[in-house]
Amino acid sequence: MATLTNHQWRLAARPAGAVKPTDWNFTEEPVGSATADKLLVKTLYLSLDPAMRGWMNEGKSYIPPVEIGAVMRAGGVGKVIESNDTRYKAGDFVYGTLNVQEYALMTGKELSPVDSRLAPLPVYLSALGLPGLTAYFGLLDVGKPAPAQTVVVSGAAGAVGSVVGQIAKIKGCRAVGIAGGADKCRYLRDLGFDVAIDYKNSDVKAALRDACPKGIDVFFDNVGGEILDIALTRLARHARIVICGAISQYNNTTPVKGPSNYLSLLVHRATMAGMVVFDYQSRYPDAMREMAAWMQARKLKSREHIVEGIEKFPDALSMLFSGENMGKLVLKVAAE
Amino acid sequence: MATLTNHQWRLAARPAGAVKPTDWNFTEEPVGSATADKLLVKTLYLSLDPAMRGWMNEGKSYIPPVEIGAVMRAGGVGKVIESNDTRYKAGDFVYGTLNVQEYALMTGKELSPVDSRLAPLPVYLSALGLPGLTAYFGLLDVGKPAPAQTVVVSGAAGAVGSVVGQIAKIKGCRAVGIAGGADKCRYLRDLGFDVAIDYKNSDVKAALRDACPKGIDVFFDNVGGEILDIALTRLARHARIVICGAISQYNNTTPVKGPSNYLSLLVHRATMAGMVVFDYQSRYPDAMREMAAWMQARKLKSREHIVEGIEKFPDALSMLFSGENMGKLVLKVAAE
Repeated sequence: MATLTNHQWRLAARPAGAVKPTDWNFTEEPVGSATADKLLVKTLYLSLDPAMRGWMNEGKSYIPPVEIGAVMRAGGVGKVIESNDTRYKAGDFVYGTLNVQEYALMTGKELSPVDSRLAPLPVYLSALGLPGLTAYFGLLDVGKPAPAQTVVVSGAAGAVGSVVGQIAKIKGCRAVGIAGGADKCRYLRDLGFDVAIDYKNSDVKAALRDACPKGIDVFFDNVGGEILDIALTRLARHARIVICGAISQYNNTTPVKGPSNYLSLLVHRATMAGMVVFDYQSRYPDAMREMAAWMQARKLKSREHIVEGIEKFPDALSMLFSGENMGKLVLKVAAE
Repeated sequence: MATLTNHQWRLAARPAGAVKPTDWNFTEEPVGSATADKLLVKTLYLSLDPAMRGWMNEGKSYIPPVEIGAVMRAGGVGKVIESNDTRYKAGDFVYGTLNVQEYALMTGKELSPVDSRLAPLPVYLSALGLPGLTAYFGLLDVGKPAPAQTVVVSGAAGAVGSVVGQIAKIKGCRAVGIAGGADKCRYLRDLGFDVAIDYKNSDVKAALRDACPKGIDVFFDNVGGEILDIALTRLARHARIVICGAISQYNNTTPVKGPSNYLSLLVHRATMAGMVVFDYQSRYPDAMREMAAWMQARKLKSREHIVEGIEKFPDALSMLFSGENMGKLVLKVAAE
């Protein structure tokens, strides 16, 4: 096999605040060959996620930070090019932490199969991938909504939020989404949300009061900051707040804005719980089966916002923080 | 019966920040007589609690605010003076929301009997009263500590905190208390706490790290502010934070300081839950029986800080916020 060249985005510096171009190095090296225990995988699609910003910071979190000089971590869907592993053959589609590079050498254990007949490949980074699984377990296991209860989700037009709202509807709940801009709100209504609140152009507090006359039973928070604080003022008794992320705070250079209204937890006997999807790994297959069935029944829609070209990685990532993407942000690295 | 005079502390104004003398009116009126459905009760001891500061504010909380001009709300132990209720006769000791006054007209339903042979009367405002019950249900039902786990409590020398630590020990946990000053820390060690951290004279972050090498499993918070934020950096996986109060924030004129480190809930898959003791009312008798047995076995000690004289009410209340009291703050209004 002719020697292939691998282009890679490596972390050059730990960013302070928003990520700058100088925080990255775009590097090039020859690709190794498959070995007895490593398969060679060609990257097709990479998942771009708000959590990536956290991985760039030093310090303990739910997974170790990306080291300076290392290829940036990213989940992706790829195609097996060379394999000595009996579980995978050349041409198979796989999911794994391929990182931001054109080729990856991976063990079979680090990969899971992807069935391109069931859904288009980018969907495996979206509704049938970690964002969808995060929505599924976060809402159902942590939020525990009962039929007819009110579920409110922030970052509702994002990869996680859009699935949260749709699963809420599937479970017989009232779904209220908060997103930025008229286009995103239209998208939420298309997905079946009962109410879409445009935080950029409306009084969120008043809108939440109107949308949730009996209060919020489940608040699924992807955003943090001001919106979390407003939601805390509208809780129903025994409300559950699912802390999934806080994209409004990830680029802070000042301390994170803690929820000033947290004593509302006491007033309303409410609970705020953090969740990390990796804890549910043993249940991924069942959840994916259920979500695939919902997709086939057209109860669950997945939408991807695809940016093409590995060289676009830094610009594409920053779209998450300016709120430019609608649906799951995916970087297309190569054609299938 | 000769007409008795009732002295009462009434709310004159809603305080901004710390309560000022001008926020109160000390009034005098004749006492009414018992009626067909109202008993006349003489106030002996009143409970002074951090929560009272919240009741003085306007706005929705877990109970309605005290109205301007109304007698300040307070729980107390009293003696029945006149009764037409078959459940109580003159001379009986009772607990009820007697308010800050020398005499109260109460329905039988608003009272519960107090057995002065089982424990001294002030203990019914302390370990065998709402503070003890708050500790009991907050720790056991919300915090759910398992044996050998680490329980940390803030405001540990207070009426609730001191019972939290002692119940933690009874349940086989490691108990760490945070309190202000050497005297309070000595008191905590006397009560059997494994570690007492003096937040006024030590680096709480370093002290918590040393005291909780495996992290905090249950953090029972009475204080809020900086100490809650530090505790959030030391959570064990699946930690439970019980939000009982936030005395550091009650006199704020600026917004409450929300916990900046709340995303630690996500990293550690932790939960922060608010609780209000009133929700457990049906289980008070069982809990009081169990706690009384612990007291008789000398596993649970109750300590009251008694200030004498109804005229001292405003000054006594402010002791809670300057941290001057050690153990349950009680106002003695009349001799038994």
